[in-house]
Amino acid sequence: MNIYFACSITGGREFESVYQQIVAALLADGHEIPTSHLAQAEAMDGERALSPQDVYERDVNWVKNCDVLIAEVSVPSHGVGYEIAFALQAGKPVLCLHRQDRRVSKMVTGNPDPALKVKDYSTVEEAISKAKTYLLTHLTQI
Amino acid sequence: MNIYFACSITGGREFESVYQQIVAALLADGHEIPTSHLAQAEAMDGERALSPQDVYERDVNWVKNCDVLIAEVSVPSHGVGYEIAFALQAGKPVLCLHRQDRRVSKMVTGNPDPALKVKDYSTVEEAISKAKTYLLTHLTQI
Repeated sequence: MNIYFACSITGGREFESVYQQIVAALLADGHEIPTSHLAQAEAMDGERALSPQDVYERDVNWVKNCDVLIAEVSVPSHGVGYEIAFALQAGKPVLCLHRQDRRVSKMVTGNPDPALKVKDYSTVEEAISKAKTYLLTHLTQI
Repeated sequence: MNIYFACSITGGREFESVYQQIVAALLADGHEIPTSHLAQAEAMDGERALSPQDVYERDVNWVKNCDVLIAEVSVPSHGVGYEIAFALQAGKPVLCLHRQDRRVSKMVTGNPDPALKVKDYSTVEEAISKAKTYLLTHLTQI
């Protein structure tokens, strides 16, 4: 499955190791994740080398071509919020994962779109498990 | 003019006084701002009393009915990112304002949509001045 993994870049990287572990687990299952480099510690350097326009075009095209968008939303981010709206508008299924102790915008938690699911987790293992279960149970039709 | 003013709520309130001064200046010019209460210090309490679904429905309807969306994007926010994408999709003009020393997501700064403008400022007065100029020069057709 082609997964757009969305995570905070400019907004803050305190959950970087969570991003990395989720991405690594999904890659190990054989999924394709064009954004996998954005989970890495070098993400900021690599992104800085690209023009804002190039990043925008690249990311939007990846969203358009993905089977599903999985967003880690523990750390606020304009980019991730934008991508969630864009993906839903493009008819893509979206899973938002956040650590249990983090409050998430009501524009995400209150969104009635049936294509959007929001799940919390207390450990990275639980986040990974919920992502895998989601991919199995919600997306078997793809 | 009916202005949807978008600012971080759950994402962090360190720019609250900036939100308040921008909103006060635009209200003083006679504009309507249905979200004006979200700039106030009590925003968190008031919003907590509403269900996430009610907040989502209310905000989305306000975006649909506005003439223009003005977003303060110095503090990362999923909700504001979502609203920017939603507003552009609905064909609304969008102005994003951020303090000069804040880095903003490339999903905002790299977005080629001609309906989106991004401006930086160093003082609140400059932010207000840029908002007023934008409303005058870009939106005279409304």
